[in-house]
Amino acid sequence: MLTVWPLAGIPEISAGDHLVDVIGSAVDASDPLADGDILVVTSKIVSKAEGRFVTADDREDAITAETVRVVATRTSASGHVTRIVENRLGIVSAAAGVDASNTPEGTVLLLPVDPDASARALAEGLRARLGVRVGVLISDTLGRAWRDGQIDHAIGAGGVQVFEDLRGSTDTQGRPLHVTLPCVADELCAAADLVKGKATGMPVAVVRGRADLVGELDLPGARTIPRTGERDMFRLGYDEAYAEGFADGTASVQPRSKTTSTK
Amino acid sequence: MLTVWPLAGIPEISAGDHLVDVIGSAVDASDPLADGDILVVTSKIVSKAEGRFVTADDREDAITAETVRVVATRTSASGHVTRIVENRLGIVSAAAGVDASNTPEGTVLLLPVDPDASARALAEGLRARLGVRVGVLISDTLGRAWRDGQIDHAIGAGGVQVFEDLRGSTDTQGRPLHVTLPCVADELCAAADLVKGKATGMPVAVVRGRADLVGELDLPGARTIPRTGERDMFRLGYDEAYAEGFADGTASVQPRSKTTSTK
Repeated sequence: MLTVWPLAGIPEISAGDHLVDVIGSAVDASDPLADGDILVVTSKIVSKAEGRFVTADDREDAITAETVRVVATRTSASGHVTRIVENRLGIVSAAAGVDASNTPEGTVLLLPVDPDASARALAEGLRARLGVRVGVLISDTLGRAWRDGQIDHAIGAGGVQVFEDLRGSTDTQGRPLHVTLPCVADELCAAADLVKGKATGMPVAVVRGRADLVGELDLPGARTIPRTGERDMFRLGYDEAYAEGFADGTASVQPRSKTTSTK
Repeated sequence: MLTVWPLAGIPEISAGDHLVDVIGSAVDASDPLADGDILVVTSKIVSKAEGRFVTADDREDAITAETVRVVATRTSASGHVTRIVENRLGIVSAAAGVDASNTPEGTVLLLPVDPDASARALAEGLRARLGVRVGVLISDTLGRAWRDGQIDHAIGAGGVQVFEDLRGSTDTQGRPLHVTLPCVADELCAAADLVKGKATGMPVAVVRGRADLVGELDLPGARTIPRTGERDMFRLGYDEAYAEGFADGTASVQPRSKTTSTK
């Protein structure tokens, strides 16, 4: 049995707020947490506490600054340009996670500097303050290749397993489950989004029932989830990869006006 | 508050089994369901009931038959070829969803013929049998671009909204939430996977707490989730798109040995 509920009583967060105190106070005023509970914290409030505000006029520059690599760009009929990029955390998303909703007028918000470090600090602080061994995930809403809509995913993890490694286990027929590696951190963030809602100002949810996933603070973080580099079969959009190939194909053939050897 | 629990008492499913009876009996032996409960059913048992078995020797042929379009292929160091393909349901996944785990020895399993139709039939039959207005999702475990591991996604939906359309609503500052379209069906399947587990033989979970998403049986199905065709920015892997571009680039340049006009 899994239970998931939003944590009431989280006020609007400002730069410099101490999230261990804010979340700890909200827990004090609600039902107590238990060992093995997992707090799923919307990245937006972590960013706000870290003061990651940028003026909205600088939004495009901010996206550029957060971008390690452009994966694909598309211009809509209305002229709006969407940039799908890999950000400095290895996460591929639209606009590098730069967020314009639920931010003060005239500002946009960058992702937390180091979501895994933030999650670990939160988990450590809340374990000390509340006296229970909780885990913390930091979530962000991401679109997906090949599927419409968005779901929440884990971008930071503190004291929670991000993968449930079943590769050594067997199916009900006793055969090894070779390739199964459930990304439980993403599943937990998806579950939490079902109670948080986007428009309701409930940025933290508690998930109870998977205490087996909660462990030491030095468990691998969510930084281990993105698949980048050579292992990424979709490192450019179709148009961008085609254009690279076309340019190289063109260059590989000696133009007939030139007189040097084609070899 | 969301609660998610596995439905105990689902036996091994064989071709021809009537899932309304099987799931209905399991519900009869457990806590009663309520209006608005959502049953998340692993696609594997739907496939088994539909007799979608193929002999394992024909696995590669089966994948080919289920494939509408090859998106990418990669050969591992050990020589194993992985095919990422779009199947006849529009879903992009490895091996077209052809599944070799938890199947009888020597067989593999194809996806259900029409998961939305199966989900609607299940929802209709269970509503009639149990006297409560439940929704049904059929889930499959899928890998993702750019992220390691898999999570469960919705491939069939009966009487459940697959998207929660927030595009007309506003954020806490009263500004419109333009691009937000949470794929709640995928989030529900992800949540359900956290209690089902891969190796435990618990193929059905119940999600209670989002009755707002349960509606008429003619709600749009999960077939509306895949993004295909021109809207798909990642319709080929990098290598495949590059190769197409390279070939076209080469062909666009007149080889110097030819004597026809270059235009």
